[in-house]
Amino acid sequence: MKKESLRMSYYFTLPVNENIALAYCDLSMAQEIYECVISDKEHIGVFLDFAHRTTDISVQEEYIKMKLHNNAEGTDKMFCLIFEESIIGCIDLHKINQKNQSAEIGYWIHSDYTNRGFITAVVKKICAYSFYGLHLNKLSIFADVANVASNKVALKCGFEFVGTDKAEVLLRDELRDMNKYSLLKKDFQLE
Amino acid sequence: MKKESLRMSYYFTLPVNENIALAYCDLSMAQEIYECVISDKEHIGVFLDFAHRTTDISVQEEYIKMKLHNNAEGTDKMFCLIFEESIIGCIDLHKINQKNQSAEIGYWIHSDYTNRGFITAVVKKICAYSFYGLHLNKLSIFADVANVASNKVALKCGFEFVGTDKAEVLLRDELRDMNKYSLLKKDFQLE
Amino acid sequence: MKKESLRMSYYFTLPVNENIALAYCDLSMAQEIYECVISDKEHIGVFLDFAHRTTDISVQEEYIKMKLHNNAEGTDKMFCLIFEESIIGCIDLHKINQKNQSAEIGYWIHSDYTNRGFITAVVKKICAYSFYGLHLNKLSIFADVANVASNKVALKCGFEFVGTDKAEVLLRDELRDMNKYSLLKKDFQLE
Amino acid sequence: MKKESLRMSYYFTLPVNENIALAYCDLSMAQEIYECVISDKEHIGVFLDFAHRTTDISVQEEYIKMKLHNNAEGTDKMFCLIFEESIIGCIDLHKINQKNQSAEIGYWIHSDYTNRGFITAVVKKICAYSFYGLHLNKLSIFADVANVASNKVALKCGFEFVGTDKAEVLLRDELRDMNKYSLLKKDFQLE
Amino acid sequence: MKKESLRMSYYFTLPVNENIALAYCDLSMAQEIYECVISDKEHIGVFLDFAHRTTDISVQEEYIKMKLHNNAEGTDKMFCLIFEESIIGCIDLHKINQKNQSAEIGYWIHSDYTNRGFITAVVKKICAYSFYGLHLNKLSIFADVANVASNKVALKCGFEFVGTDKAEVLLRDELRDMNKYSLLKKDFQLE
Amino acid sequence: MKKESLRMSYYFTLPVNENIALAYCDLSMAQEIYECVISDKEHIGVFLDFAHRTTDISVQEEYIKMKLHNNAEGTDKMFCLIFEESIIGCIDLHKINQKNQSAEIGYWIHSDYTNRGFITAVVKKICAYSFYGLHLNKLSIFADVANVASNKVALKCGFEFVGTDKAEVLLRDELRDMNKYSLLKKDFQLE
Repeated sequence: MKKESLRMSYYFTLPVNENIALAYCDLSMAQEIYECVISDKEHIGVFLDFAHRTTDISVQEEYIKMKLHNNAEGTDKMFCLIFEESIIGCIDLHKINQKNQSAEIGYWIHSDYTNRGFITAVVKKICAYSFYGLHLNKLSIFADVANVASNKVALKCGFEFVGTDKAEVLLRDELRDMNKYSLLKKDFQLE
Repeated sequence: MKKESLRMSYYFTLPVNENIALAYCDLSMAQEIYECVISDKEHIGVFLDFAHRTTDISVQEEYIKMKLHNNAEGTDKMFCLIFEESIIGCIDLHKINQKNQSAEIGYWIHSDYTNRGFITAVVKKICAYSFYGLHLNKLSIFADVANVASNKVALKCGFEFVGTDKAEVLLRDELRDMNKYSLLKKDFQLE
Repeated sequence: MKKESLRMSYYFTLPVNENIALAYCDLSMAQEIYECVISDKEHIGVFLDFAHRTTDISVQEEYIKMKLHNNAEGTDKMFCLIFEESIIGCIDLHKINQKNQSAEIGYWIHSDYTNRGFITAVVKKICAYSFYGLHLNKLSIFADVANVASNKVALKCGFEFVGTDKAEVLLRDELRDMNKYSLLKKDFQLE
Repeated sequence: MKKESLRMSYYFTLPVNENIALAYCDLSMAQEIYECVISDKEHIGVFLDFAHRTTDISVQEEYIKMKLHNNAEGTDKMFCLIFEESIIGCIDLHKINQKNQSAEIGYWIHSDYTNRGFITAVVKKICAYSFYGLHLNKLSIFADVANVASNKVALKCGFEFVGTDKAEVLLRDELRDMNKYSLLKKDFQLE
Repeated sequence: MKKESLRMSYYFTLPVNENIALAYCDLSMAQEIYECVISDKEHIGVFLDFAHRTTDISVQEEYIKMKLHNNAEGTDKMFCLIFEESIIGCIDLHKINQKNQSAEIGYWIHSDYTNRGFITAVVKKICAYSFYGLHLNKLSIFADVANVASNKVALKCGFEFVGTDKAEVLLRDELRDMNKYSLLKKDFQLE
Repeated sequence: MKKESLRMSYYFTLPVNENIALAYCDLSMAQEIYECVISDKEHIGVFLDFAHRTTDISVQEEYIKMKLHNNAEGTDKMFCLIFEESIIGCIDLHKINQKNQSAEIGYWIHSDYTNRGFITAVVKKICAYSFYGLHLNKLSIFADVANVASNKVALKCGFEFVGTDKAEVLLRDELRDMNKYSLLKKDFQLE
């Protein structure tokens, strides 16, 4: 057994399909996530400023630590996308609100793995996990109006367009318009 | 000078028009706000659960204290509506986001003072305060789809309808649909 | 309406007399207070070390943030003096003690605006605010024995000399003697 | 697909063998863990006082929350044993020390599932996870001298007896002697 | 050696004279201090409200814990008076201010041990400790105007009367006048 | 009376024998402890990494502050060894566990004062203090297998060898084996 595969064998995973799985994000994954981000900073950074702020490993470690504390408080969950025993992206639930039974979904994937339906499959799995595992009732996705891929993902996963939030998020010193999509548990089709 | 009017004279205010003013909310106003809420609990509670949770003065005090700490962190501001030297309602900015230059507006008014245009005037003033005093760029209002008055206020103040967020907020054990309205600084008309 | 006057219009104020007003201090005032202090550092710093420690805007911001958190805890309040829509000084209540119903007053004013009775008028207003708005019973002022103006202010406002606290406060590496003055609510003359 | 199996499908797991798996412990598992503990309180409580302290679900929730915050700080990890899609026990790493590269292991299992080798298999898996996934160098187990099963587990997993710590842990008002066992990474046999 | 004297032998002490000593206050002394206070509640409570608030041992424990945290922050120190191996009172330094090199002294003694000069001797020792051990420059004592004994102690220890602070401290719902006394290091006579 | 002896006179001490005493560690001792450590860094650092990390006085101050906060929480106590009115070493109790009535002992002494039986006498005193003053039931000492002196101290003080913890503590990038010794109250001989 190779040393590399040894490391991979110790992620806690939820299978998505025969190709990919979700792994529970842990402090021990900081180095691998960091390397994934910086190796594709230009692509990931087109619609996500964090890629440009991730200037060294400690930024990634502090981010994971913050998300884990938020997990303990019940407001956030962070997962990694695993393909062939490598981390190729992240997906998270944030603003989890137990009273209103809602949350927002965010995600990014390395450009080497786009156009294979991975994100669509993963978002559907997170929907199932959120509705049946966490007993939430509503999920929302915000997609930059210029982010064609992300808008398509939301629609392919059965989310309904709610409206366009103008000047909603700062991206490289510009306030960008964001399309909001939502999905209620009652409208979710478990495949 | 009567003792009662003495107390009134020490609010820090921003005039709205010849009838009403906004006052900076302070711990010393807890008793008066509390009395205003419980004297009109049925009306205020139709669309706001907090009215039912305000079971004694300490709940009100803790709420103000929490808002003042959030003010110190830059995320919230809370004001009282003053009419003839009495508190008749509250309006706040919450989720103030310095990076995205945005905030959300919330408000309630005692039923003795509705239908006089007070809320419309106050919301317009808060818009001016937010855009010119706090240098924000975007304000949003969420109104229950059944709250005719609140939907009208948003439109009268120049806010644009963004979309309907289904099952967005829990109100007496029911997840209610909320209409979202937004206003950008560039679209705001200073009267 | 000029842009500058726009900014001024959004302070929450308590009128002092026809010339001046008090404004509730807010994070958004940090820049203007900072500019006021550094433009008169020599004068303000004669009896107040903070003027020399205010080396950049972030020092001022952290100070206001600390005072606002203390406001939430009920121990401090900080106000700005407004003259012709400009900040010309600050006055605060500190060591507010709800059990003993007491507080201490501190203040400074830009040298361009001294000798006009502004501080005397403002201190009297803060007395009225503290006794009738905050229901305190006792206020104290500490004045450096060499600070002729400040000692006069205390006496002109009706404060009684309590005693001289020797070697009480460090000022530029010297422990200075301070005169203490106090005023009880029962002895306060509302004008 | 039954509702019950739906819930089970959303655990993040690490397979142990063909029968059992480890699941990353989450706030959403509090109810199921609580029911497992109280249904077997007499057995679990023979050597673990926590079983007697778990008097309602909120005790379990607070415990998980504390462990998740400790996970964010890097000192604890808590996992559930899954057999046929049910939680049948827990295993944790505590006192994780990054500097000394060490941790302690603790565990319990419902009496319906003892004597099947489950705990031995799970401890071996946790050893592999700790040495290769978390890069620790040393693991320790403390077993009550009267806890025959737990002493056997330590030895069967390749741990070496270090010594007997007398009067080490309070159990129902009695200070009990504990056998300490340790295993170094270099002595661990990956099966 | 008797068990009781065993306990006494483990206080960390600073001798005051041949009769009495000061002991560093510790959590393990809570029970003994508590018993001392409640056995003389009427006497101690004449000028100190805390005696009436000390309704059970946990109040005393929380107070000591708070003082020890303040000690770690450098603002408070709390000591016990030891006579014939028993605690007969307490003396503390509070509002220790490193910048201004000043502190305030507070104390109480069980009525069985008054009129023997114990407090005077102890205050003198604390002055020496503060000026030479802690390098402070100024100490102050506040004594209720009706507390003849305490006023005498201040004067006998060489403190100078500063002034009478009217309505300074709440005692059983009455705001009491307090005499303030101060002593500078340069005026302290080491005996 | 010399200035230097003045300073020494204000430690709170517990006599050990005719030569040495223990003093309650205080923030005001930081400078003297720091000087003791750096004057003997090579010797102290042979088995204790902290000596190498103590690069300036602020490191020592932060360490004492942390220990004093832990003292307030009941988990740590730190004392200085006093010989001829000078600090010559430190001894502490850490991991104080009120439930299990246990603690661990740590110590170091300047090389100018070794081989005189000081540490043995001090450890015995701390045992008496812990068993009779703090009502603990068990004390443990960890000694590096190569630290002949420390192993001897444990045995001379009546501690029993428990076992050797392999690779237990990092010392200059090497994980060292540590011998563990324990002593129960019932086995302690008060001399």
